[in-house]
Amino acid sequence: MEFLVHVEVTWPPGTDPELKEELFQQELRRGRELAREGLCKRLWRIPGRWANYGLYEAPDATAVHEAVSSLPLWPWMDVEVIPLAEHPNDPRKLGIAP
Amino acid sequence: MEFLVHVEVTWPPGTDPELKEELFQQELRRGRELAREGLCKRLWRIPGRWANYGLYEAPDATAVHEAVSSLPLWPWMDVEVIPLAEHPNDPRKLGIAP
Amino acid sequence: MEFLVHVEVTWPPGTDPELKEELFQQELRRGRELAREGLCKRLWRIPGRWANYGLYEAPDATAVHEAVSSLPLWPWMDVEVIPLAEHPNDPRKLGIAP
Amino acid sequence: MEFLVHVEVTWPPGTDPELKEELFQQELRRGRELAREGLCKRLWRIPGRWANYGLYEAPDATAVHEAVSSLPLWPWMDVEVIPLAEHPNDPRKLGIAP
Amino acid sequence: MEFLVHVEVTWPPGTDPELKEELFQQELRRGRELAREGLCKRLWRIPGRWANYGLYEAPDATAVHEAVSSLPLWPWMDVEVIPLAEHPNDPRKLGIAP
Amino acid sequence: MEFLVHVEVTWPPGTDPELKEELFQQELRRGRELAREGLCKRLWRIPGRWANYGLYEAPDATAVHEAVSSLPLWPWMDVEVIPLAEHPNDPRKLGIAP
Amino acid sequence: MEFLVHVEVTWPPGTDPELKEELFQQELRRGRELAREGLCKRLWRIPGRWANYGLYEAPDATAVHEAVSSLPLWPWMDVEVIPLAEHPNDPRKLGIAP
Amino acid sequence: MEFLVHVEVTWPPGTDPELKEELFQQELRRGRELAREGLCKRLWRIPGRWANYGLYEAPDATAVHEAVSSLPLWPWMDVEVIPLAEHPNDPRKLGIAP
Amino acid sequence: MEFLVHVEVTWPPGTDPELKEELFQQELRRGRELAREGLCKRLWRIPGRWANYGLYEAPDATAVHEAVSSLPLWPWMDVEVIPLAEHPNDPRKLGIAP
Amino acid sequence: MEFLVHVEVTWPPGTDPELKEELFQQELRRGRELAREGLCKRLWRIPGRWANYGLYEAPDATAVHEAVSSLPLWPWMDVEVIPLAEHPNDPRKLGIAP
Repeated sequence: MEFLVHVEVTWPPGTDPELKEELFQQELRRGRELAREGLCKRLWRIPGRWANYGLYEAPDATAVHEAVSSLPLWPWMDVEVIPLAEHPNDPRKLGIAP
Repeated sequence: MEFLVHVEVTWPPGTDPELKEELFQQELRRGRELAREGLCKRLWRIPGRWANYGLYEAPDATAVHEAVSSLPLWPWMDVEVIPLAEHPNDPRKLGIAP
Repeated sequence: MEFLVHVEVTWPPGTDPELKEELFQQELRRGRELAREGLCKRLWRIPGRWANYGLYEAPDATAVHEAVSSLPLWPWMDVEVIPLAEHPNDPRKLGIAP
Repeated sequence: MEFLVHVEVTWPPGTDPELKEELFQQELRRGRELAREGLCKRLWRIPGRWANYGLYEAPDATAVHEAVSSLPLWPWMDVEVIPLAEHPNDPRKLGIAP
Repeated sequence: MEFLVHVEVTWPPGTDPELKEELFQQELRRGRELAREGLCKRLWRIPGRWANYGLYEAPDATAVHEAVSSLPLWPWMDVEVIPLAEHPNDPRKLGIAP
Repeated sequence: MEFLVHVEVTWPPGTDPELKEELFQQELRRGRELAREGLCKRLWRIPGRWANYGLYEAPDATAVHEAVSSLPLWPWMDVEVIPLAEHPNDPRKLGIAP
Repeated sequence: MEFLVHVEVTWPPGTDPELKEELFQQELRRGRELAREGLCKRLWRIPGRWANYGLYEAPDATAVHEAVSSLPLWPWMDVEVIPLAEHPNDPRKLGIAP
Repeated sequence: MEFLVHVEVTWPPGTDPELKEELFQQELRRGRELAREGLCKRLWRIPGRWANYGLYEAPDATAVHEAVSSLPLWPWMDVEVIPLAEHPNDPRKLGIAP
Repeated sequence: MEFLVHVEVTWPPGTDPELKEELFQQELRRGRELAREGLCKRLWRIPGRWANYGLYEAPDATAVHEAVSSLPLWPWMDVEVIPLAEHPNDPRKLGIAP
Repeated sequence: MEFLVHVEVTWPPGTDPELKEELFQQELRRGRELAREGLCKRLWRIPGRWANYGLYEAPDATAVHEAVSSLPLWPWMDVEVIPLAEHPNDPRKLGIAP
């Protein structure tokens, strides 16, 4: 099942820049693990914001929760998980796009 | 450039069912054209609603507008076009996912 | 997987009362079929409104969409499908409640 | 009478992790007491968030308030209590589901 | 148990004025019945609007739903039922006010 | 003239518990004074929240402001004052309820 | 007591223009009566909209309701009545402005 | 003074297409007059919607209202007029851009 | 040109009371200067809140910004400036009210 | 492609004024660089707020993100990037305005 995951990160401006850099690197590493595990399929930045949309594929919402809440920046995140149903016109289903 | 397109269709319940079926078929045909033209990459239904999220790829917002407003059901649609920027952790950019 | 389904029905007041009664009866019948098929587990009315919360269990969002959009009153409905993940303190998981 | 209780926990990221773990354990214990007392019937996590939906059964809103405000994490919670009325199609009322 | 009931009436301006007057009179009669039955305790108009706040007392949300949905103007109403818990400083509980 | 006053208290969780208890007691005392002065007629807790609805009677909005802003917890409050007009079906006006 | 009254008029575009002109003239006449009766003190148009802000002075919310609901266009209006309290820095109270 | 004008057009889908085309042509003509009169400086379409943002320059809000309400499609518009103040870093003020 | 200015002050409860009193006095002084300069015409408190509506008269939005941002409490303010256009029924334009 | 960029700056009132002045100057310098690079075309202040609307021109959303997130005050900003499509009545396209 696919999910659209909308993440907004709220990082208090004055916070220790070293902690921020360290967490950011951990976040990149964990994010790539989720990609290799086939959970995170695509990831786009929302321009102008520390925010993103991600396309996740997981057996159910519990698996998505475990994946998202495993991200190092999760405590600074506001997350909305939107369930996606199949569409008869989905280019992938029609074999038109990967 | 990629865009996330959120469409909500409002179809007055009592409207002529034949018109609805005719338009729905036209919509399917036009949707597949947009897929073959490489504009619409993915399409997911929002469960419970006559609504969907679409992933579009187009040179700019003017091209996205022309594509979306060419859909037969456009007059019954409420559409939000969300611009997407590249993310360093995008599994496609990393070569991990198609 | 479980889903919380929030339904708001908007019925134009002047509409033909016989049509309304007929649809309402069909809705009751279809609702009971969804219950017997194990899709709809619980259903509560939101007091003061023609609206309800339902607890659904289905393999994925596509199945929930098919169930909800099969309801005769669906064209008059505004529906939000909220995905539910398991909680470590869920009385059912703990064997405390059915 | 049944109530749907929507809880959102806001935990300041930098707060002392030991306090967090201690409170979290207390929260689990208190949550199970509410389940054994028959107040909390079901509990689901909202994926991606430190948030949940709970199904409560209590004589009235005063009893729900006392139950929810007795949770150790209550000071960090934003809570909405939604009253639920009986629905003629409720699978439990119809004897179809527990 | 007490409930705060917020009602907004949406009456299409061009609708038959005789129907409106007839319904309005029925509404007044039914409203007084609910008052005599001890369900509706107070009723205030929200200035500038065809809307009101009502203080209801009923065993549970199901009873409130039955009362409110029995009002002739209910099909034209948008209703929010807010559950009320007892407050230690309630002048009535303290015997200071009726 | 009557007013419906909706109060939401935001108390930072880590704040000194003794200060909180002291203020809470002062709040109870001041609240009872407002009741005895005939300004606050009824007070209900919104279940699950540190929030309440109050029914106030005062000559005008200036008097309501002076009453509400005299509460010790006012600096931690978000307050909405809703003006109430008389309703022809008000059980009190009809002599049906106190 | 003073009130800020925010009015939004929703006029269905296709409606009979003669009815519109007739109502508009009645509205102007009634509006001037409210001004001469000292109820409406100032009236400003919200640019781009068929909407306005009005400064009303009336003994209470019931009087404001009677004034506003007497306007011929009231059935097409969405109205918010905001109660105003005196401010120590009000130029009129200070005698600096009329 | 400059204003940002956000326009959303709501055109009932079934409405007479000839009327629509006629109004649309009138709208184009009137829009160009406003441009030649120096009132409308720039106009952008919001992709996916029958909506636009316009940059207007006018002596005050009354002039903007007269300009916008003179557009043939005005009865079908929902308009927000946002006042703009000068910014010290405005490329035009700095002579960097036209 | 006239503007309606809606100000909400957010003052962190624990902040130094002396600083608050000092700023409050400065605010009163500066507010009266704006009144004498003819910029601020009227000022009303929104009951229950540290908030107000002000009627300003200024050549344009830049002048309003300079006036409002000169207030000592501006860093603690959330401000909305609403442009006002003339209304044909404005009692002042009609000579009925000052 | 053009973008409308809405920026709201949230600066905690008590923060070190020297840091604020230093950042503000850096912001002015960086803003002018973006203007000279042809990315930022116009910039307007939203009156009463530390906020602005900017007109940006960039190849895509990724370039806009890099420009906006390079601003020194970015960590204190809440930013919305609105994509703009061409409008047939754009005075610039028609050669009527620069």
